[in-house]
Amino acid sequence: MESKSRVLIVGVTGRLGRHLAEASLSSGHPTYALVRATTLTSSPEKSQLLQSLVSSGLQLVQGSLEDYPVVVETIKQVDVVISALGSFQIMDQKNIIRAIKEAGCVKRFIPSEFGSDPEKIRLPDPSYTFHAKKSEIRRIIREEGIPFTFISCNYFATFLLPSLVQPGLKCPPRDKVFIYGDGNTKAIFVKEEDVAAFTIKAMDDTRTLNKTVYLRPPGNIQSFNEIVQLWEVKIGKTLEKIYVPEEQVLKIIEENSYPSNFEMVFIYSAFIKGDHIYFSIKDSGVEATELYPDHKYTTISEYLDTLL
Amino acid sequence: MESKSRVLIVGVTGRLGRHLAEASLSSGHPTYALVRATTLTSSPEKSQLLQSLVSSGLQLVQGSLEDYPVVVETIKQVDVVISALGSFQIMDQKNIIRAIKEAGCVKRFIPSEFGSDPEKIRLPDPSYTFHAKKSEIRRIIREEGIPFTFISCNYFATFLLPSLVQPGLKCPPRDKVFIYGDGNTKAIFVKEEDVAAFTIKAMDDTRTLNKTVYLRPPGNIQSFNEIVQLWEVKIGKTLEKIYVPEEQVLKIIEENSYPSNFEMVFIYSAFIKGDHIYFSIKDSGVEATELYPDHKYTTISEYLDTLL
Repeated sequence: MESKSRVLIVGVTGRLGRHLAEASLSSGHPTYALVRATTLTSSPEKSQLLQSLVSSGLQLVQGSLEDYPVVVETIKQVDVVISALGSFQIMDQKNIIRAIKEAGCVKRFIPSEFGSDPEKIRLPDPSYTFHAKKSEIRRIIREEGIPFTFISCNYFATFLLPSLVQPGLKCPPRDKVFIYGDGNTKAIFVKEEDVAAFTIKAMDDTRTLNKTVYLRPPGNIQSFNEIVQLWEVKIGKTLEKIYVPEEQVLKIIEENSYPSNFEMVFIYSAFIKGDHIYFSIKDSGVEATELYPDHKYTTISEYLDTLL
Repeated sequence: MESKSRVLIVGVTGRLGRHLAEASLSSGHPTYALVRATTLTSSPEKSQLLQSLVSSGLQLVQGSLEDYPVVVETIKQVDVVISALGSFQIMDQKNIIRAIKEAGCVKRFIPSEFGSDPEKIRLPDPSYTFHAKKSEIRRIIREEGIPFTFISCNYFATFLLPSLVQPGLKCPPRDKVFIYGDGNTKAIFVKEEDVAAFTIKAMDDTRTLNKTVYLRPPGNIQSFNEIVQLWEVKIGKTLEKIYVPEEQVLKIIEENSYPSNFEMVFIYSAFIKGDHIYFSIKDSGVEATELYPDHKYTTISEYLDTLL
């Protein structure tokens, strides 16, 4: 019987990391997480999460990415390394790459991307540096000849969708909605659990070796107008619609400095520029839905049901 | 009959700004707000807020702090300027100071502080620059001879308290609580509405001219242990307590880069260093409770009732 590959997850207490650990453990992979000693007391939320993951079989390795010997020793014990580090720690992945190179046993490295393809994005500043860092990590991985898979899953469902893409709101509006752009550009939102399940499938798949995998399931692709329409049907009410044209959106981004324009930058990228979808993936990667046609993704419509 | 002073509020759509506008309007002051044209479409939340304030009598002036002539013309029409700009815009107040100087009619300027006294704080980095900027604004105001009041209201009730000072949690815990430090240092939390009401009283008061006013009402001062105890009585249950010693807290701050250590830095400042309370205000300012002994503040205990 084929033994399951051993997985190390870095960034396990983050937004995606917890789901990666759950998906890996429930698929029977021996799963390790590199966790700082202080993380256990830094917040009750993280402490509780780690306890629950450990009781499911997660093996904690105490250490940080700055403890280089610990990183190398840990990586020597695994076949796959998945990084789910947050956007402020993208460059810290250089230490992981160096340790993977030294350990020499890793069959696949999945760096922290889990968003738009950083080499295809046409975002306005200041997010440019955000994607530039991810591109730089890609460059180093290729240069070092490390076997990789890049996961381009576009936006997480819990980003923007919970307010029906209305900055500042905590839940979807029930009377009036702002639509940024003309509302016809398609964007993609995938639930974190689906991204994690998919990543665990892809990490051992020879078809994804040294490829970018794009997650664009049909039920997860909708325009702003379509999302609003879905919501209107669900609540049984027509909303007043206020269209904010592209030039106005750019002005909002320009006049509000980072980080207060953060959401608007990503709204612009997805719903106006169409950075998610309007490019050919033929030469750069593979389509997730073709690799695993049977995987059932939570659709945008199903996600909106949970907000009712 | 004495006419009410005319007030300009900058940053009216922020966390405190809305309450300042409401307090000013309900006290009968002609109230103006400098608002960018794009703010009306930047988010449904802000648009709705502005509509509601305008219907209460707020007079919107369209413009930004970069439109210097607009700023000067607006300031020429008022007696008091209150800035409630967010922490990323502290240095933008230089434009306000320059315009106040040119307008020559302003009887009081209240810059955006509304936190701990930036000249007394002993926070570890990276928040140091945050307070250094506020100190720099104080220096310029004094140098230019602009009549001022600095409001040192300590922490807002909606910061840290909603989770009973548990980073990452959205509501107070009901089984286990982390206590950072030994739990005996006193901290101060005041509701935004009270800070705003107080600021509007202080802006015309000769006793607060060129002074720092400290808000430290007795019912708003509690130690970590006392806050937990209050909560235990309210929910009728004893919580398991995990004490995280000071050295551990400092390690958490050091190992987690900004902004993920943001909350912990402020927890350390208030609940371990006691930056709020353990200094003499004799020479530097006046105690709010002595100026207006009749004002009724929402106490920490009353605020916790709203979380049940």
